Amino acid sequence: MPSPSLPPTLYYGGDYNPEQWPESLWPEDIRLMRRAGVNLVSVGIFSWARIQPSEGVFDFEWLDRLLDLLAKNDIKVCLATATASPPPWLTRAYPGVLPVDVNGVTLYPGSRQHYSPSSPDYRRLAGDLVRAIAQRYGKHPSLVAWHINNEYSCHLLECHNEASTVAFREWLRARYGSIDALNAAWGTTFWSQIYRDWNEVFTPRRAPYHSNPTQWLDFRRFTSDAFLECYRMEAAILREVTPDIPISTNFMAFHRPLDHFKWAREVDFTAWDSYPDPLDEAEGRHWAAIGHDITRSLRPDRPWVLMEQAPSAVNWRPVNRPKRPGLMRLHSLQAVARGADGILFFQWRASKAGAEKFHSALVPHVPVDDSRVFREVEALGAELQRLSPVAGSLPPQRRIAILFDWENWWACDLESKPGKTDCVAWVRRIHRWFYERNYAVDFVHPSASLQDYALVVAPMLYLLRKDDASNLDHYVRDGGTLLVTYFSGIVDENEHIVLGGYPAHLRSLLGLWVEEWCPYPADRGNAFRFSNESEAHDCHTWCDLLHAESAEVLADYTGDFFAGRAAFTRNSHGSGHAYYLGTEPGEAGLSAVMERVCGAAKVAPVWQTPPEVEATLRESATGRFLFLINHGDRTATVSLGTHRGTHLGTGTAVRDTIDLASLDVAVIALQ
Amino acid sequence: MPSPSLPPTLYYGGDYNPEQWPESLWPEDIRLMRRAGVNLVSVGIFSWARIQPSEGVFDFEWLDRLLDLLAKNDIKVCLATATASPPPWLTRAYPGVLPVDVNGVTLYPGSRQHYSPSSPDYRRLAGDLVRAIAQRYGKHPSLVAWHINNEYSCHLLECHNEASTVAFREWLRARYGSIDALNAAWGTTFWSQIYRDWNEVFTPRRAPYHSNPTQWLDFRRFTSDAFLECYRMEAAILREVTPDIPISTNFMAFHRPLDHFKWAREVDFTAWDSYPDPLDEAEGRHWAAIGHDITRSLRPDRPWVLMEQAPSAVNWRPVNRPKRPGLMRLHSLQAVARGADGILFFQWRASKAGAEKFHSALVPHVPVDDSRVFREVEALGAELQRLSPVAGSLPPQRRIAILFDWENWWACDLESKPGKTDCVAWVRRIHRWFYERNYAVDFVHPSASLQDYALVVAPMLYLLRKDDASNLDHYVRDGGTLLVTYFSGIVDENEHIVLGGYPAHLRSLLGLWVEEWCPYPADRGNAFRFSNESEAHDCHTWCDLLHAESAEVLADYTGDFFAGRAAFTRNSHGSGHAYYLGTEPGEAGLSAVMERVCGAAKVAPVWQTPPEVEATLRESATGRFLFLINHGDRTATVSLGTHRGTHLGTGTAVRDTIDLASLDVAVIALQ
Amino acid sequence: MPSPSLPPTLYYGGDYNPEQWPESLWPEDIRLMRRAGVNLVSVGIFSWARIQPSEGVFDFEWLDRLLDLLAKNDIKVCLATATASPPPWLTRAYPGVLPVDVNGVTLYPGSRQHYSPSSPDYRRLAGDLVRAIAQRYGKHPSLVAWHINNEYSCHLLECHNEASTVAFREWLRARYGSIDALNAAWGTTFWSQIYRDWNEVFTPRRAPYHSNPTQWLDFRRFTSDAFLECYRMEAAILREVTPDIPISTNFMAFHRPLDHFKWAREVDFTAWDSYPDPLDEAEGRHWAAIGHDITRSLRPDRPWVLMEQAPSAVNWRPVNRPKRPGLMRLHSLQAVARGADGILFFQWRASKAGAEKFHSALVPHVPVDDSRVFREVEALGAELQRLSPVAGSLPPQRRIAILFDWENWWACDLESKPGKTDCVAWVRRIHRWFYERNYAVDFVHPSASLQDYALVVAPMLYLLRKDDASNLDHYVRDGGTLLVTYFSGIVDENEHIVLGGYPAHLRSLLGLWVEEWCPYPADRGNAFRFSNESEAHDCHTWCDLLHAESAEVLADYTGDFFAGRAAFTRNSHGSGHAYYLGTEPGEAGLSAVMERVCGAAKVAPVWQTPPEVEATLRESATGRFLFLINHGDRTATVSLGTHRGTHLGTGTAVRDTIDLASLDVAVIALQ
Repeated sequence: MPSPSLPPTLYYGGDYNPEQWPESLWPEDIRLMRRAGVNLVSVGIFSWARIQPSEGVFDFEWLDRLLDLLAKNDIKVCLATATASPPPWLTRAYPGVLPVDVNGVTLYPGSRQHYSPSSPDYRRLAGDLVRAIAQRYGKHPSLVAWHINNEYSCHLLECHNEASTVAFREWLRARYGSIDALNAAWGTTFWSQIYRDWNEVFTPRRAPYHSNPTQWLDFRRFTSDAFLECYRMEAAILREVTPDIPISTNFMAFHRPLDHFKWAREVDFTAWDSYPDPLDEAEGRHWAAIGHDITRSLRPDRPWVLMEQAPSAVNWRPVNRPKRPGLMRLHSLQAVARGADGILFFQWRASKAGAEKFHSALVPHVPVDDSRVFREVEALGAELQRLSPVAGSLPPQRRIAILFDWENWWACDLESKPGKTDCVAWVRRIHRWFYERNYAVDFVHPSASLQDYALVVAPMLYLLRKDDASNLDHYVRDGGTLLVTYFSGIVDENEHIVLGGYPAHLRSLLGLWVEEWCPYPADRGNAFRFSNESEAHDCHTWCDLLHAESAEVLADYTGDFFAGRAAFTRNSHGSGHAYYLGTEPGEAGLSAVMERVCGAAKVAPVWQTPPEVEATLRESATGRFLFLINHGDRTATVSLGTHRGTHLGTGTAVRDTIDLASLDVAVIALQ
Repeated sequence: MPSPSLPPTLYYGGDYNPEQWPESLWPEDIRLMRRAGVNLVSVGIFSWARIQPSEGVFDFEWLDRLLDLLAKNDIKVCLATATASPPPWLTRAYPGVLPVDVNGVTLYPGSRQHYSPSSPDYRRLAGDLVRAIAQRYGKHPSLVAWHINNEYSCHLLECHNEASTVAFREWLRARYGSIDALNAAWGTTFWSQIYRDWNEVFTPRRAPYHSNPTQWLDFRRFTSDAFLECYRMEAAILREVTPDIPISTNFMAFHRPLDHFKWAREVDFTAWDSYPDPLDEAEGRHWAAIGHDITRSLRPDRPWVLMEQAPSAVNWRPVNRPKRPGLMRLHSLQAVARGADGILFFQWRASKAGAEKFHSALVPHVPVDDSRVFREVEALGAELQRLSPVAGSLPPQRRIAILFDWENWWACDLESKPGKTDCVAWVRRIHRWFYERNYAVDFVHPSASLQDYALVVAPMLYLLRKDDASNLDHYVRDGGTLLVTYFSGIVDENEHIVLGGYPAHLRSLLGLWVEEWCPYPADRGNAFRFSNESEAHDCHTWCDLLHAESAEVLADYTGDFFAGRAAFTRNSHGSGHAYYLGTEPGEAGLSAVMERVCGAAKVAPVWQTPPEVEATLRESATGRFLFLINHGDRTATVSLGTHRGTHLGTGTAVRDTIDLASLDVAVIALQ
Repeated sequence: MPSPSLPPTLYYGGDYNPEQWPESLWPEDIRLMRRAGVNLVSVGIFSWARIQPSEGVFDFEWLDRLLDLLAKNDIKVCLATATASPPPWLTRAYPGVLPVDVNGVTLYPGSRQHYSPSSPDYRRLAGDLVRAIAQRYGKHPSLVAWHINNEYSCHLLECHNEASTVAFREWLRARYGSIDALNAAWGTTFWSQIYRDWNEVFTPRRAPYHSNPTQWLDFRRFTSDAFLECYRMEAAILREVTPDIPISTNFMAFHRPLDHFKWAREVDFTAWDSYPDPLDEAEGRHWAAIGHDITRSLRPDRPWVLMEQAPSAVNWRPVNRPKRPGLMRLHSLQAVARGADGILFFQWRASKAGAEKFHSALVPHVPVDDSRVFREVEALGAELQRLSPVAGSLPPQRRIAILFDWENWWACDLESKPGKTDCVAWVRRIHRWFYERNYAVDFVHPSASLQDYALVVAPMLYLLRKDDASNLDHYVRDGGTLLVTYFSGIVDENEHIVLGGYPAHLRSLLGLWVEEWCPYPADRGNAFRFSNESEAHDCHTWCDLLHAESAEVLADYTGDFFAGRAAFTRNSHGSGHAYYLGTEPGEAGLSAVMERVCGAAKVAPVWQTPPEVEATLRESATGRFLFLINHGDRTATVSLGTHRGTHLGTGTAVRDTIDLASLDVAVIALQ
């Protein structure tokens, strides 16, 4: 059965929580939605307590009236399953639902997400709720999609309660089959940890010192799977009742607890909640872009949905700056530029009570007719209608892949490493280098097919399965260009060292082996120099001490006790080339490395633009769309070369060059 | 029945804990007390374990002998009810008395204050103790006052044990009557928190994320009330047994857990414990002064008592600097200058064991005859006798009020605000501006009568009840001058936004409304400029983006995306004027604002002095006393203008000018 | 019965954990050990779970085969009792074994050291294990020593579980006899803490505020004793079964929880684990040297063993720098220079799994034939054989003693002090002054005989028993030279102030008394100046305000309110002199003080060397050995004066001068 998809259009709207307001206000909401061009709202995300006053009893009448009102006004609904925050009666009746932290502290109701994903009572009652909602609204004309739960594990990164302990044992039994296999995988001969019985195993609660790292790694896998089982339980009910309605849940991009590549197989479209900090626009523009790229990469065959963003300030940072005029439109169109077909917000109407009342909303606390934010909301709604030709189009096939693997992230974050191993920070730096130059990149799992990519980058793939190492080997052998960086290929899926000279499974591919590492604290570092160049580039954080075998040395270290030894190499392997970077360079050194690698792989930017203008493309059977976004504070001029097109926002024809004011965005349908 | 009061005299002495020493040392204590001029000691504060060896058994004989000895030597006693630290037998017999923190951690005996204020067992046993003490000593000739408990909630800011959970539910039921009313007040439709039964409600224990803010606000109210119920329970017994003996407890000025305006109604005189840090004398002098002012303001009709201070160093800071020669006298007379009739210390004799043995005392570890500190103690005792005409006098009626409200403090400190909302830091800055210029100010609750004030300042009155907003409106309408600052009038008593354009209830009074806020982190800010001035003043922390309606714009912002919009305004309202300051200025900008407002309100300093000389007045039917305190390191000359008087410390006549050496204090009975 | 000792030789080897590897790899281990010159391995430290699969069942066959293999290859074994990490079955069967922290958090299995030392179940099962091991291997030809447990209390600094609570009460009952004696010792009249029954007493768990300091001090004593009881229980079994085999456990030098002077009486030789940080070689050389000195001082009649060090990087710091070439040899020979007869490592073969897999080992993850580290390991093994004449020799009798007392450390670290009282940091500074000038010093308990020392230094002996004060008095009276520093002699063994003018028990010895203290925060300080000198030396942290009685004032303060008062004094007392330093000087001031005191005591360095060359001596009946260690980055030349000798490493004769390359070490057998 093919996966159902969203009808192609540009969606505009947000979370709508009318239960917080008297029903008499609803008509005003609808009137303002229509005025703003809203065509999709997410309803019911936190409505469990309202829908189900006690076990077995449901009150849907208010929701009937609401959905009918929306349907009558042609506003579609992404209907939540309402399972994100269990009502007080539930946790009172079933206190075993409450999560417990690593210290044994029970987390109480009063906030949200106060449920153990492994609790059988939670799952049973959540299932009852989902079935009741699906059966009641499965055929409602307003329904276009299901919104399962909400931001899984956002605030509950792990749970150690009794239900989780029992479920962890079951999960381990399923993974390993025998306790001996668990002992082998966890290396329990170390520190006298040999288990004789499944019931001796616990989640990694507070211990006197470093806990077993594989226990932690498996607990991270288990936690992702425990939440995924909750999702699957809901999805199974929905697919049974409404097989044609697409299903999703809102991700949070680089959110550590969930293995998103595994999760993405289960959603009909991807969605994420993007909250760049307006206090740092330069950082925020890349923070959003990389989140858009990973979200798109998880399900690259379909447009994705920006499920939440803030119209202006949020409420949860220490200092919550509002978005200055134009910034909300820019953020929104940047998402469309990177493949989004939906621009939704948290939330429609600003709460007057509760923990998020100072989170901005489409309808603010102040009268809408006097509100700058609402004026920008209206204008964007109108503009999105003019951009509707873009709907359904996709970014063109990428030629560059960055390998990313949540299990590697978990492994890098385990304790007791040689030095700082913040793989995500390093991935962000590399992505940003591409981003700032308008190279289009995918994020790809190391097990995925790589044959369509001209360049593959593997930054700190510390945990690398043997099969994935072979995947890289074949890719290069078949003519690919690969860049591997320091501290890759060190451990297998159990976080055991792969012996034989690091990174053993990549040794012939890279033509080298690493003998030692020299990590650096923040206030120290080294430098490296390319052959035949006089100037050295600084590097920091880490230096591999490597031995080139078949690899050619392109640059060597200039300092410390290993001065003169190789820092950056190239190895011919089959029809391709494998580069290896044994350190983390500063900005200039990184550019020197990346330019060589990009040159060798013959990859090019999407468009040539001035420094602060971001450019992307989307394509469909009916058109090709160039997005130009001026993040700078001054007007910028972009050359269109020989291209001509139509500026969809203004409807005017463009050719030769186009001027973009500060924060302006142009979407050009190319001829 | 009128509230009994302390016989008017200047009290001098301190906490006396003779149970720490062999009884053979007591006569030496008495001899030294008389030598030092001590006329009042607080006895029994931590004597519960000594007085009551087990439930139902009391041992008063040692205390009989002690009080008789004091009476014989004309030393009065402020007798403690001894309930501040339950004995080990009590918490062993009733472990439910032990408090529990937000994480569920039980707090054990071994320190002090290890009792839940809501524990029925604690209350019952404390009541038994108080009744036994009152009955035994109610008619003792040494008794002049009751000292209930000690520094309520000083170290126990909140409790989440079972007794507190049950009592919180009862408190809520009494406040709201119905669970529906609680749901409305707490806004429980948000995040699916609707309660169906009182037993579903908990104190706000650790949760996965931000808890319900109104739940926290009510928990703060409940906590203040729970301690207050303990106080009332004790006071009721004492008033029944000894209706003529005044009752108090020692406050801690800006101590967050207790709503001091509510508490102050229950004491016969106010008292507080003042511990300025000698490491920073410039900060310390204001820290003490503002504490004196709030203590006086809580019960302005009577002199107050400085119940504790340190003769020299304390023991509980990381670095405990001794008070240099003269500083202890200066601190003491500064308290008298601001209305104190009692100068007491913690403690009489320095402990040789326990957690506070390095806290200085009147009688130190070293022999008294060689002790600088004891020499200063003796000299101050003698001086206070010369200052006795001051006893019973009061500071003259203030013309300036700063509005302060503990509930607003609690609300400002809740999570999830637009930016930093440290209302007390802002109040301290404003008070300090007045203090450094010898303006006399009261702290006043927003519901109090304001008609006698020429100027009222409302700094960050974020939580403002509708009736209190009317109070401000009437004050201005009737001719008052009001200064309101940023982020005032935003929420009601349930911490719900008052809709209609912030600050809705003050909108007509101020002649403006606020659309958005732009908070700043510590390293950023903005500036504002008065009309017709060229120089701008920096501002920081926060900028309101406001719309003047009837208000006149006096100054506007110079930077950020809202440059040119109003920062400081004045609105004519009835017979008065309401100023509004939308930001927090730096020092120069604050002075520019305050000078304009003070000028408009026609308020003036108490006395003109050089910069480091503090001046205050006290008045009674029999005299008018000018206090001059030189905090500087150099001699300062103060002009008396046409005034003449008598220097009470020296007995000499003064006129024209008076010279004050560094750290010197002159008390002048004006003619 | 005399204490058995290790056969004299230079031991070389490390922890060997073959249970982590397939048995087929063992022969390769043995081959590499012989190649590297390894002659001693520690076996079984974490083998409990491997040896004992369930209660009452032992599996020794693998260990039989291993020890036989080692014996056959002439590799001796330091056999562990394997009790350091209980197996999972044990804590599942006896959950009361699990420790509990100060907050009541249970510490779970999954790491190591997860046992309460007071648990009867742990002790019983550990005893069973030790007896089984001793009986099986007591006569094995490879056995040369017993290694009891491992790094006692390294990660478990204290325990508050039920077993510890019960045992603490028993320990107190044994110490005090009656509850009244406990009340007197703890000063429980303070804060109403009088106990009536032993069962009212708890370990000092989390309380609302500072807990009783004597309760904490006794809890520190109890904790050291609780671990010591575990050690004694094991030692008693071993001594019964194998009276001729020496016993030890690995200490950690300045490790706070254990009173090492008390422990040292129970070991047959001392041993410690030394992990200087290669990121700071200048600090690391002293960090190791002072650890060697305290370890040697605990049992000065015998050579000691460096039981663990890292061949290169460790895994547990945030940044783990490898040891650059030469540094591992230097660290090893520095230990020999300071009295070690054994140079052992953690561990033989680097783990491929578990929490310590990135800790370097003698056999690394990379092939040994390509490993720099293994090459250095081999070279050192060969060199140690050439240095074998040194084995059994001892450093010559010291003439300088630094007094040190773990109980004083615990007392200094209690809360509520006048200022920063980091006695160990101060001891380190004073030792370092001696170390950098090649003075040889012992660490000595204040109760020890001092008559053989020319100079005794007492740095911050805050807790000083009356008898120990007499010991100092007699030492000086009999002609000794003593330097006492600030905040000494303040409290007795119960941490009660000794009244009568601080430091009362030393008042006549020092000829002075202290009235007050002025501690300073890190950004402030004072200075002091010697009589007849114009230049002042800065001082910081603390100034005593002292009164010289018979003492001569050598230097006085230049600043603050006590400028002109004495800072440094000398008192003639009997035939000797007692110096008193009332403050903590900067480097120049410290040298000025120390040079005067050393001059007066007529003590001299071991050898004159250039600044970065460390020199020590060892002596035996058969020889006298000079160790010269060049820590600098340049070649250094050391004068041998009229001495001649043989360079043991090279076998060459040396005279006049000797050149040492950077990081080189010369061991010279003097003629």
